[in-house]
Amino acid sequence: MAQPRIAIIGTGLIGTSIGLALMSRKSRNYEVVGADRDRGNARQAKKMGALDRDAGSLEEVLSGAGIVILAVPVQAARQILQESSRYLTEGAVVTDTCSTKADILRWAEEFLPEHVHFVGGHPMAGKEKSGPAAASADLFKDATWAVTPSPRANEDAVRAVLGLVESLGAIPLYIDAAEHDQYVAAVSHLPILVSVALFRMVRDSAGWEDASLLSGPGFRDLTRLASGDPTMARDILATNREAVLHWLHRFQDELTTIGKAIELGGQPVMDLLSSTQLDRDTFVLHPPFRRRPEGVAPPSAQDAIGRLFVGGLYDRMKDMSNRPAASPRDNAELRRKLGVPDEPAER
Amino acid sequence: MAQPRIAIIGTGLIGTSIGLALMSRKSRNYEVVGADRDRGNARQAKKMGALDRDAGSLEEVLSGAGIVILAVPVQAARQILQESSRYLTEGAVVTDTCSTKADILRWAEEFLPEHVHFVGGHPMAGKEKSGPAAASADLFKDATWAVTPSPRANEDAVRAVLGLVESLGAIPLYIDAAEHDQYVAAVSHLPILVSVALFRMVRDSAGWEDASLLSGPGFRDLTRLASGDPTMARDILATNREAVLHWLHRFQDELTTIGKAIELGGQPVMDLLSSTQLDRDTFVLHPPFRRRPEGVAPPSAQDAIGRLFVGGLYDRMKDMSNRPAASPRDNAELRRKLGVPDEPAER
Repeated sequence: MAQPRIAIIGTGLIGTSIGLALMSRKSRNYEVVGADRDRGNARQAKKMGALDRDAGSLEEVLSGAGIVILAVPVQAARQILQESSRYLTEGAVVTDTCSTKADILRWAEEFLPEHVHFVGGHPMAGKEKSGPAAASADLFKDATWAVTPSPRANEDAVRAVLGLVESLGAIPLYIDAAEHDQYVAAVSHLPILVSVALFRMVRDSAGWEDASLLSGPGFRDLTRLASGDPTMARDILATNREAVLHWLHRFQDELTTIGKAIELGGQPVMDLLSSTQLDRDTFVLHPPFRRRPEGVAPPSAQDAIGRLFVGGLYDRMKDMSNRPAASPRDNAELRRKLGVPDEPAER
Repeated sequence: MAQPRIAIIGTGLIGTSIGLALMSRKSRNYEVVGADRDRGNARQAKKMGALDRDAGSLEEVLSGAGIVILAVPVQAARQILQESSRYLTEGAVVTDTCSTKADILRWAEEFLPEHVHFVGGHPMAGKEKSGPAAASADLFKDATWAVTPSPRANEDAVRAVLGLVESLGAIPLYIDAAEHDQYVAAVSHLPILVSVALFRMVRDSAGWEDASLLSGPGFRDLTRLASGDPTMARDILATNREAVLHWLHRFQDELTTIGKAIELGGQPVMDLLSSTQLDRDTFVLHPPFRRRPEGVAPPSAQDAIGRLFVGGLYDRMKDMSNRPAASPRDNAELRRKLGVPDEPAER
């Protein structure tokens, strides 16, 4: 009898890291299937042990999947939602890891059938490098993972995504999509622009050769985000443009204020630096408390696997992966073609 | 018989890390003495094994020292240079670790006696935290260490500092002080302002609570420098103001350019992000080649200790630490006071 199936679409840094974390769980009772537009990425993810199986098409990866994770740039997710609609099993839970949330919730509403539950997600984790090779099972350890359910998603679906997030070691944060987009523009999207601007400024200057020789860990840390995936960054800027530009202008104002303080010199500069140091040290030493979603009880099962498939979802997922799917590439069809007898549909 | 003596003035993150690295060397043939304006810091450094001895005054720490390392903020270094003058042993080599180099070279010229050799230094290494507790022996491993000799310093003095730098695991970069200050303004000082501005902007916004909950490693990395020592940053801004303001304005221009590209959207944004990613990846994968000082041969001795005290310096340093120093706090004077016979001055 088939096991519940988790599908990962997009096996880059994030998708492959999710796969590695899911596959590393002892006595797991689910199967992990993945696909990537670049089949080589999915093959590499499988080779790394992040997948049980790499699929060659959207139909194949979605077939019988109870949980579907879209780990692709925002604008690719739109297309996948549009195309997935006819392959998704009834009752499937669809989530994503995209950097902006308002657009994707709208697209899910627009494209997904009513019997599918969409719960948006966004792990606040990343790395200098992209692609499956950079993935690691502990990428999400203690990271905040924003969770933005669609109005239509039922409580079981929200719990399933919360369970998934917790089983990856992250801490879920229940938040409204519009609020999410506004705040991540400040703490995540603007920093990309800051990194890009700082690197370009020095790189394009006449003194680049000597300046780069003198650059230390500060320059390297501050320009790290300029090495991120440009497609992801472009999609962020396209789907969250107003919020990003708002914070960009506020940042420029802040720089102007600081520049004026430096021109004047003296005690105000020292006060500004000291109070900022104090505030940041406080932030680092006492990071903000991350609340659980209001109105949604935390997964109660002690068992980690139990936490991933709470309530009736486990049984329903088993059921889904047994059901013959719409696609001709599904296992039942393949078995028939190869002359392999169907597995008994017991239980 | 006394061993050559290295004096570290300022036992914060940098001074204590230097001490730890120097003390960790096997079969070392020198003594490490340290002092700090805050005596508690020096005691902590000694407790951590970064010093053989902590001294209670400038006279005491300088007495008989062949190499003197000023590991203090720039403006404190000025005062120390001024006050050290009468305690420095003839032929002593004085170096520093300050973030800007033009002013300190001028002060060394102005305040140090002619028989003392000043060779400026600046390790491109740091940490989020300051103070001795954050120190580590490998802080300088593979870091660039700018070396800016004063016109008066002789070749032996330059070699001694190069040997010191290499014995700490760093890679010396011989550079003109004015050039140094211009380039570090771009890669080291402006990044501090960028970190401070980014942190303040989010911290002072109405959405701070939610924004901080959503902040991940990107925000943390980009604001790291805002947790640096404010006195050090203030001194940097005071002694390198014009260069910092120059780069600050260029940075604002760069942000304006990027903001316009985002407003327009489309392919130009993607091109900008892609080319920056490529350039930064190239910079990280193939870091620039760090040249040895021109005209100064690398220390030739195979032995690491030999590298630290090349040429005739070792013997001269031994000689220095045997000589009765000017201060009444020196060992000879102390021995006399305590009735302890002088050690034989053999060899």
